[in-house]
Amino acid sequence: MRILISGFGTVGQGFAEAMILRRNFFQERYGKDLTIVCVMDSSTFALDQSGLCPAELLERKKSTGKVGTERYQDPLKVMDSVEYDLLVEVSPTDIKTGGAGLKNIRHALGAGKDVITVNKGPLALKFCELVALAKKNNCKFRFEGSVGGAMPIINLCRENLVGENISSIRGILNGTCNFILTKMDNGQSFEQALKEAQQMGYAETDPTNDIEGYDSACKVVILANSLFKRNVAFSDVSITGITAISSEAISLAASNNMVIRLIGEVSNDKLEVAPRLVPKGHPLSITGTLNAAQVVTDLAGPITISGRGAGKIETASAIMSDLVSIMDDRKGREGRCLNQ
Amino acid sequence: MRILISGFGTVGQGFAEAMILRRNFFQERYGKDLTIVCVMDSSTFALDQSGLCPAELLERKKSTGKVGTERYQDPLKVMDSVEYDLLVEVSPTDIKTGGAGLKNIRHALGAGKDVITVNKGPLALKFCELVALAKKNNCKFRFEGSVGGAMPIINLCRENLVGENISSIRGILNGTCNFILTKMDNGQSFEQALKEAQQMGYAETDPTNDIEGYDSACKVVILANSLFKRNVAFSDVSITGITAISSEAISLAASNNMVIRLIGEVSNDKLEVAPRLVPKGHPLSITGTLNAAQVVTDLAGPITISGRGAGKIETASAIMSDLVSIMDDRKGREGRCLNQ
Repeated sequence: MRILISGFGTVGQGFAEAMILRRNFFQERYGKDLTIVCVMDSSTFALDQSGLCPAELLERKKSTGKVGTERYQDPLKVMDSVEYDLLVEVSPTDIKTGGAGLKNIRHALGAGKDVITVNKGPLALKFCELVALAKKNNCKFRFEGSVGGAMPIINLCRENLVGENISSIRGILNGTCNFILTKMDNGQSFEQALKEAQQMGYAETDPTNDIEGYDSACKVVILANSLFKRNVAFSDVSITGITAISSEAISLAASNNMVIRLIGEVSNDKLEVAPRLVPKGHPLSITGTLNAAQVVTDLAGPITISGRGAGKIETASAIMSDLVSIMDDRKGREGRCLNQ
Repeated sequence: MRILISGFGTVGQGFAEAMILRRNFFQERYGKDLTIVCVMDSSTFALDQSGLCPAELLERKKSTGKVGTERYQDPLKVMDSVEYDLLVEVSPTDIKTGGAGLKNIRHALGAGKDVITVNKGPLALKFCELVALAKKNNCKFRFEGSVGGAMPIINLCRENLVGENISSIRGILNGTCNFILTKMDNGQSFEQALKEAQQMGYAETDPTNDIEGYDSACKVVILANSLFKRNVAFSDVSITGITAISSEAISLAASNNMVIRLIGEVSNDKLEVAPRLVPKGHPLSITGTLNAAQVVTDLAGPITISGRGAGKIETASAIMSDLVSIMDDRKGREGRCLNQ
């Protein structure tokens, strides 16, 4: 399996680190090495058909700020010059146009390559087109890390809960908002909590995307299209962020043994992001930067999963799980279980 | 796939109900019917190689108290007289000897049949023997519902987290204890809370198995053997139940923004059930009869799953998920995902 990585920011570098950590795992499981044959960042690329060394890539990026020594104008021409089997698309999210990520994914699927991405822009804007393209060309297209980071919500529903009828998913899909709301539970004002989130590196200088609920809305769209077979886009989501939540509202909730959490909800007829009251002790009443999602099923009842919604190696772990899943599919499923 | 069911109490009947609800699902997914060819309860059996009607089985059990019209002396002779592919073993748990369940499972695996069970006795006593027997005879042996009911902890670790190094699992593995502790959080004494649990049908008349931590200990053993490749038994677990937890201890915890929960913990060098302090808002601080388990991994960090730990249809759902997994394995893995 020859891998092309587009994007070498935090997540791309995390993936390179994970590849170093899991080299033995892949060799033992599949009897062969995975090789990274090409990496592109925003302006340069590194290419070696016999395999690039992940440690060298990380070192060069750290010391020079660039992953490659050669510059490129057109990323698609670089892709065409590489023999690869799988694109890992982790370039910056552009929620308005899909950006370079959308072009790269289209190009790879169009050429019959498997694709793993955590890039929410292309998924929130052009999900059904991309899935159809993958199907047409018999490619695998996976995106576990695009919703909830390390929390395996998509694969949980697709694999473990495949025999269930899922009626809805409700989740805390943005760790920054959950951090702010947790700080407000402890008595801080919204402004203080936001400032602390920025100081901790959880919120960006312009926090709009998080606190207005736009990031959560992208994830709701991905869940709706991938798990409910809907065909919706970002503009279909009813969105309310957390900026209007007052300290008084938080106190009132607490006096009723509740907390306020920003909840994304998707079902066959719902597509919404809004603050909601959650009873303390409920699986969605979690604190801090965690993400959580509750899947309501007809036989098993409600199943809730939580995990770290962001982070370098955590997001890379979701890519690795997609990679294992694709390699298992490609070789047939036997041997997937630890015992027997 | 021809199924033999041993045990037709709550879980066996729940499984029959689930088979009715999922008939179309199995036909669409595999292009054929699943048939129940034999069901045994404690003294009778029903047998029809062309397939028994689950609704009729349920009706007869309800009206006569027995699933069959013929009585048997030796269950193994009944099994020998049936042509079947898969045993669903859901007879009553006997944690001291393994009971009829252990004999039935051994007999089926010895004859080269796949087995699904939720029976904790055989798993807590003879896990490694049974797994070795399954492996020797090339049988599938699954037991998702034996730990945490509908909560898919085993398949989560085996499938979604297969690329992770799991260092420990900590969990709330007994819903009865969690119900009692939640009631104590709300000011009840242990005695009051236990009485209410008994009135609600969550605790048995003799609640020893739950409140002394024995049930949780069985589940810890199953997790240790199945996910940590250990070879341990019930007697290896360090067990402290919840009977010594005072209202004062609960209050003291609450004043520090904590709750007390009965936690089972397993790692490479730990095997323990004991009450622990859990911060409010932590994924393991859940209330009521829910079960939860936190899996600590090296890349993804902590992943927590929660769900209903008991219940007729909920436990049956775990058997159904094992059944889907076995049928997928038997036919090869393709088509397991909802999209493409």
